[in-house]
Amino acid sequence: MTLRDEIFQQADVLQNLLDTEWGHIQQLAQEIKARQINYIFLTARGTSDNAGLYLKYLFGINNGISVALSAPSMFSIYHAPPKLEGSMVLAISQSGQSPDIVEVVESGRKQGALTLTITNTADSPLANAADHVIDVQAGVEKAVAATKTYTAQLMSIAMLSLALNPDPEKLAVLRRTPEFVASILDQAAVMEEAVERYYYMKQCVIVGRGYNYATAFEWALKLEEMTYIVAKPYSSADFRHGPIAMVELGFPIFMVAPRGEVYPQLLDLAVELREQKKASLLILSNEEEILKHSSTPIRLPAEMPEWLSPIVSIVPGQLSAYYLAMMRGLDTENPRSLSKVTRTR
Amino acid sequence: MTLRDEIFQQADVLQNLLDTEWGHIQQLAQEIKARQINYIFLTARGTSDNAGLYLKYLFGINNGISVALSAPSMFSIYHAPPKLEGSMVLAISQSGQSPDIVEVVESGRKQGALTLTITNTADSPLANAADHVIDVQAGVEKAVAATKTYTAQLMSIAMLSLALNPDPEKLAVLRRTPEFVASILDQAAVMEEAVERYYYMKQCVIVGRGYNYATAFEWALKLEEMTYIVAKPYSSADFRHGPIAMVELGFPIFMVAPRGEVYPQLLDLAVELREQKKASLLILSNEEEILKHSSTPIRLPAEMPEWLSPIVSIVPGQLSAYYLAMMRGLDTENPRSLSKVTRTR
Repeated sequence: MTLRDEIFQQADVLQNLLDTEWGHIQQLAQEIKARQINYIFLTARGTSDNAGLYLKYLFGINNGISVALSAPSMFSIYHAPPKLEGSMVLAISQSGQSPDIVEVVESGRKQGALTLTITNTADSPLANAADHVIDVQAGVEKAVAATKTYTAQLMSIAMLSLALNPDPEKLAVLRRTPEFVASILDQAAVMEEAVERYYYMKQCVIVGRGYNYATAFEWALKLEEMTYIVAKPYSSADFRHGPIAMVELGFPIFMVAPRGEVYPQLLDLAVELREQKKASLLILSNEEEILKHSSTPIRLPAEMPEWLSPIVSIVPGQLSAYYLAMMRGLDTENPRSLSKVTRTR
Repeated sequence: MTLRDEIFQQADVLQNLLDTEWGHIQQLAQEIKARQINYIFLTARGTSDNAGLYLKYLFGINNGISVALSAPSMFSIYHAPPKLEGSMVLAISQSGQSPDIVEVVESGRKQGALTLTITNTADSPLANAADHVIDVQAGVEKAVAATKTYTAQLMSIAMLSLALNPDPEKLAVLRRTPEFVASILDQAAVMEEAVERYYYMKQCVIVGRGYNYATAFEWALKLEEMTYIVAKPYSSADFRHGPIAMVELGFPIFMVAPRGEVYPQLLDLAVELREQKKASLLILSNEEEILKHSSTPIRLPAEMPEWLSPIVSIVPGQLSAYYLAMMRGLDTENPRSLSKVTRTR
């Protein structure tokens, strides 16, 4: 089992999660509703923290629930946890091993908060610490860079959001997500060819907004872990508030811009970056208009809705990091300096 | 008035804020306590968002108040604001002009939340939208890169935190902050000389944790705005969860590591980065031990406590960006592509 295998398993992993966990997640939603939770305190690190960014937007927009991203050091180092009573404390972790994340959940439970862990390791300390567990059942992930556990985390988040505010039309399209992911994987060769021009790239910026702010962060992390470049994620709005100054002729910018509510903002920015500043733009979209302004256009599935797009749009991102690492002769399975479980405090 | 003047005004700006706003902030604290607020919904962009990161740690650790950083697009683009009743909605903005930030405050007020604006422009739309205003009175800031308005925002946040949980010893040391900042400014020439070796730097990583997570973000933003390099902020824990893979011989890492609770974590990381990976380390600290492991040591005031250190430690960061921009012959007053007020939606 290699990183490439794990990337290509993702459509099956998502299908399995839909098939086996929907009933359990609906029960869990009943308990959350009964407790009248309108505030989630979320704790995670690395890739799982990026899944938390998706949760922040989805639960905010679809469920009216505010999400605060925790600073684990408040618990593990400063020993001064904020008041958590009445909230839901939610931990996301592939391995369920990080002591600082476990400490946040234990503190929430002690304070009487409802606690939930989303993990790929149902017998981990983190799963044991929480009242409830969603097991994403992605199977063993051997490669250090997380791929299938990330999309499975996103899928379980989308399922929980929908279970809280049921909608048959949305459920029908959620069930199509594995198919959308499979269609990207079928065209992996397009990404393999597309990244060739980035062989010498030392740094880049990744722009996303709204639901895909999470995608920008996760794509950046995959590039840093696997190809050792500095990749910096921005919302299109924050990018305009300063960092846009960095852009010069040929500066590499990757953009996640599927059809949806934030699309017009990204289109405006793409036009400015390409036509005025002559940046090198790699764009993921299912809108032809913005793809015209990119130097490297990557097509996303036409019928994918914006709220589900992060589950799909990270896949070309993962592929870009993988192919770039391969091309550069790097170790895709065990990037230097990293181990699968990082026990930070 | 140039950027350099504005940087060097900071000790006076902080002193003025202490002298004129302490009474008003104490009154405001009474109202917050009367409303039993234990949850703040914060909205800001760019530099002001970094001030919000300081607030998140300080109010969490010192006041037991959780802070959620808003996603303005939920309001201005998705038109799906989360439930805000019972919280305090807090907006931070130098200019008070961004329509998306104003929209968050208006939504909070409509929902019955207490609303507060921290700004340098007391007659702005954002100030008018809120129940209460803290005017940081930094004077006109002409340079596009925010410096004195940032430290003034941090100071007003520290004052409000202390007014909520009064402590005479902490107040005494808070009053010394202008003196700590002045001592850094007196040694500006040290920073001018120190940045010379970074003349050709194209990208770097900035590491901070806890209170100084905000400093890492703001330092990175100053470098990007003024010197057009890609600078990426990390907590020492998140850095170990993946991005540390990027580090190779001579890779530039700037670290904010004053004495305090998170110092041991940063010391461990500095030893590893310097002794094993041979990174180029510029370290800000008031601990001699960690400075020994840096290639470029910068001394912070010895008696500065950790909770106030972000107000002081960003100053060498501002100076580093300023001197690097000067050395590279860049326009320090009006960086390319930027304007002082950015009207994002």
